[in-house]
Amino acid sequence: MKAVGIVVEYNPFHNGHALHIQESKKQTEADVVIAVMSGSFLQRGEPALVNKWARTDMALRGGVDLVIELPYRFATANAELFARGSISLLEAMQCDAFCFGSEDGKIAPFLDTYHLLQEKETEYKSALKTFLKEGKSYPAAASLAFRSLSSNERGLDLSQPNNILGKEYVHTALSNNYKIKPFTIKRVAAGYHETTLHDKAIASATGIRKAIIEQKQSMQTISNYVPHSTLAILETYITYYQSFHHWELYWPLLKYRILTSSAAELASIYEVEEGIEHRLLDIAKHSSTFQQFVTQVKTKRYTWTRIQRICTHILTHSLQAEMEASSFPSYLRLLGMTEKGQQYLQSVKKELPLPLISKISVYNDDDITPDLRATNVFAQGLTEPYQTELIKREFAAPIRLKV
Amino acid sequence: MKAVGIVVEYNPFHNGHALHIQESKKQTEADVVIAVMSGSFLQRGEPALVNKWARTDMALRGGVDLVIELPYRFATANAELFARGSISLLEAMQCDAFCFGSEDGKIAPFLDTYHLLQEKETEYKSALKTFLKEGKSYPAAASLAFRSLSSNERGLDLSQPNNILGKEYVHTALSNNYKIKPFTIKRVAAGYHETTLHDKAIASATGIRKAIIEQKQSMQTISNYVPHSTLAILETYITYYQSFHHWELYWPLLKYRILTSSAAELASIYEVEEGIEHRLLDIAKHSSTFQQFVTQVKTKRYTWTRIQRICTHILTHSLQAEMEASSFPSYLRLLGMTEKGQQYLQSVKKELPLPLISKISVYNDDDITPDLRATNVFAQGLTEPYQTELIKREFAAPIRLKV
Repeated sequence: MKAVGIVVEYNPFHNGHALHIQESKKQTEADVVIAVMSGSFLQRGEPALVNKWARTDMALRGGVDLVIELPYRFATANAELFARGSISLLEAMQCDAFCFGSEDGKIAPFLDTYHLLQEKETEYKSALKTFLKEGKSYPAAASLAFRSLSSNERGLDLSQPNNILGKEYVHTALSNNYKIKPFTIKRVAAGYHETTLHDKAIASATGIRKAIIEQKQSMQTISNYVPHSTLAILETYITYYQSFHHWELYWPLLKYRILTSSAAELASIYEVEEGIEHRLLDIAKHSSTFQQFVTQVKTKRYTWTRIQRICTHILTHSLQAEMEASSFPSYLRLLGMTEKGQQYLQSVKKELPLPLISKISVYNDDDITPDLRATNVFAQGLTEPYQTELIKREFAAPIRLKV
Repeated sequence: MKAVGIVVEYNPFHNGHALHIQESKKQTEADVVIAVMSGSFLQRGEPALVNKWARTDMALRGGVDLVIELPYRFATANAELFARGSISLLEAMQCDAFCFGSEDGKIAPFLDTYHLLQEKETEYKSALKTFLKEGKSYPAAASLAFRSLSSNERGLDLSQPNNILGKEYVHTALSNNYKIKPFTIKRVAAGYHETTLHDKAIASATGIRKAIIEQKQSMQTISNYVPHSTLAILETYITYYQSFHHWELYWPLLKYRILTSSAAELASIYEVEEGIEHRLLDIAKHSSTFQQFVTQVKTKRYTWTRIQRICTHILTHSLQAEMEASSFPSYLRLLGMTEKGQQYLQSVKKELPLPLISKISVYNDDDITPDLRATNVFAQGLTEPYQTELIKREFAAPIRLKV
């Protein structure tokens, strides 16, 4: 069986994701789709709208055959680490190809960019350093530094978040001499930052989240943009748990944590650096909401996403030493599978270079601690008995979808 | 002016406390009453029913002339430290006497007990060790050890919490050769653990709290047992803040803190010892309420109070190293005063051996950090804007009562 790997958050799963799965299979002639999916907290430094089990369910019902969890330390990291974690897991899962969405849908510029950066690494790094020193945010500085290299338009527009991720995916695969082959398809949805729902069948996940959280619209509003299965899962979730997850739910815990930490303790948290801890301590005291807090902490250099990531690490108490303990994932955590996924798993089981965890209770390794802690924290967004239930769920078997 | 010192929590101030003030003045022929009062968290390891400003107000309206805050590290400690902190502050305030409530109202047995323990210190300590090894709780072991010394009935009944505190007050004063003289008056209220309201004008603070928190009774139920001023302050408080403070309000924060701490991190907290951290971690995961949590953690050796104190230190993130940094209070924090109190303060100002803090914003010392943190945590029990307001209140001037 041939497998294609994809890297996803499914926050929530929508029509664009379903299309991504179909196109990825078609382009790579794959029989099986393996998704590496983030767990409780996401790359933009925020809690997932619904827990990983509901999102795994969406994925399996939407066409994915196997869902592997991207560990917390990669799922909430910068593009480079995020890509290293996810592509290395897809390689470990013996995928023949991986396929990501990009603005233009052509793989050549990604390969060119990789080679260009290999050739001009020193110039790139020095230009990056210069732009960072000027106070630019990391994405802005990277994009500018890259543009300063290529007069001949060989490269990508690196101001596009999807292109940055794609560049890092390709970098991970090529620089590590992986067998897995990179593919890309053109994104059909509106831009990543698009937040208003249009009268089209495809809307961004951000737009869908805004519609159901901030604008408190009924589920029916989003029914054109998500598969029936997603709609049903979201409706069950809100009926059962009574709330989706979003930062404001966790603000009392984050505020409490900041106000009971010394500056030195905050500085020991992953990504808390350059004295930002003093700013966090000062501003937390007088902030009533997360929105208010980040708005006040934000500077040109510290983007909203960067601050959210810092906040996520403080909330989950992720120490720098712990987060930097390993540079590649050390296990394959299985969240769910279809029958076809299970067959694929049987066929590759003996070749897996990493331990496959289908039940956490039988796995004992420090590497998984940040993920267990992330789930414990994520569960605090729920009332009882759901809180205790979700913490226990972590130790149960993966989802098996029979179709 | 002659001053008598008293040690109080006023949780809340009731008729028994008013009587204590009157009797203390009478017995010691004092003009002025100085109360050393706990702040946000109390000796039994729980948040105060109402904040320290409301309780200072109650104290001043109830007959106290000066209110000095007992710092967190003494207010939430065992009887020995609690007494050392409070009596040393009263000595620093130049009080001529201090007067505490006891079961029999006679000072001689306290003095005898002090001398007996001085004579037989070694026997006492070895007996104490034996009883602790047998798995007895500290209060039980101390009481048994003491009884094993005195065949001739010279001593006190140390199974009474008030007698234990009194013994430590006297010990602090005598062992440090303080000028301050110990006095005691007979408690007229029902026992300390009495929790049902009787048809008498005096009820225990515990009974009053139970009536208004757990039994959700109207304020009128307690009107026979507290002065009008207390009733008015409590009514204003509940109308304004919408809630009294109790452990369940803080349980989500405590649970969050425990579940995001490693065993080693928990063990670095004050009073977390003997491996109890593993027990806390295990049980927190599956507990929905504070009540449920403590009930499950409780053992013969770990009394409810001891567990509550441990929980308080975890909640306020009070590290062992920080808590043990000083063995006596290093400042006098003024929370409130009447006009007479202010006159007294003027008269002794030059003799104070410790800095007098009337505004925290002008005082910069690490010793006060645990108290600021305690207030930050205590404030998390409120909704906004009261939370931010209470955090700011900490930096404002003391209460001045004009009568």
